[in-house]
Amino acid sequence: MINVTAAVTVREDRTAEFEQAVAAARPAMLVDEGCTRWDLQRVSGSQVDYVLLEEYADGDALRRHGSSAEFNAFGEVLKDLVAGPPVISVLRPVGEQSQ
Amino acid sequence: MINVTAAVTVREDRTAEFEQAVAAARPAMLVDEGCTRWDLQRVSGSQVDYVLLEEYADGDALRRHGSSAEFNAFGEVLKDLVAGPPVISVLRPVGEQSQ
Repeated sequence: MINVTAAVTVREDRTAEFEQAVAAARPAMLVDEGCTRWDLQRVSGSQVDYVLLEEYADGDALRRHGSSAEFNAFGEVLKDLVAGPPVISVLRPVGEQSQ
Repeated sequence: MINVTAAVTVREDRTAEFEQAVAAARPAMLVDEGCTRWDLQRVSGSQVDYVLLEEYADGDALRRHGSSAEFNAFGEVLKDLVAGPPVISVLRPVGEQSQ
């Protein structure tokens, strides 16, 4: 499994729109069976800092996601809503994993 | 569920020790049923940047973890191995979740 975290700061006046945009995009992201998690989180204590917890079956699934029309369309929507570019971390498991 | 990410940069000469310290501490962290995930990841493309993906059943489980002897002992071990303090993000789910 490949976990990915995407941390983003949303413009203060656009958080509701951002959450709706993620909810709207989510089903299409999960259509690809290789995308096993695409869960939005907000950082505790913040109104504008969010993290998407993502998980992919393998590198191919991650590449498919990154080149999908849905992902690109979501990127376009995000441009107006975020205060800066997301910080994406692609993670490699080290040692025993629960998931 | 409460997800937590703990991002840490390890001293270049101590990564093997760090990975062993996490592996050694992990079983005790998972003894508490409320701790449902404590998975070490390394950031792709880096030799020194790691993220612990953690998950807790609820706030009580997270508090138990944070005040446990195992957690404090692990913190002591970390002091010599890391290049700086971990960046901890306690996350609140927003919308539909896969896990």
